[in-house]
Amino acid sequence: MNDYQVKLAKISGEFIWHKHDTTDELFYVIKGNMKIVLRGSAINLSEGEMYIVPKGIEHKPVAEKECHIMLIEPKGILNTGEINNELTANLDEWV
Amino acid sequence: MNDYQVKLAKISGEFIWHKHDTTDELFYVIKGNMKIVLRGSAINLSEGEMYIVPKGIEHKPVAEKECHIMLIEPKGILNTGEINNELTANLDEWV
Repeated sequence: MNDYQVKLAKISGEFIWHKHDTTDELFYVIKGNMKIVLRGSAINLSEGEMYIVPKGIEHKPVAEKECHIMLIEPKGILNTGEINNELTANLDEWV
Repeated sequence: MNDYQVKLAKISGEFIWHKHDTTDELFYVIKGNMKIVLRGSAINLSEGEMYIVPKGIEHKPVAEKECHIMLIEPKGILNTGEINNELTANLDEWV
């Protein structure tokens, strides 16, 4: 949409701590439950719930069981934020 | 999110034909069914389905029964596009 991408992901387990210095990031839970761990707090999200992680805020997505989510963020944003490792998805792939 | 708004709306009946010359518009169905009528075609959306209306494309949202939707578009976009009438929602209200 415009210069934004809507991404669908199945997540399971713990993702790494990261942040996006230039953009907010919208998480919407389609199915299951997840937690967005922040430094000092955590946001629990159930089906149909959403949360927007403000830019620059470190966060770690966690799903105890498989969880289906929709992510919305500008094109070209790496899923691992400022960190490039084996969890970094290619920008042309569906993550 | 950034300079975008996420709007929640309960829609019922036929909305007016309109378009947004400057932006795409994302429709996501949370509950129920709706139809996005375009000139010459129509997109049927059920729960969990989404459609992005490209900028400049005339469209008319229709819901036979009450339907709960999430809309994502840049801040400051009028729900009725280029038309200002009694269906135009104030930008500070939840539509």
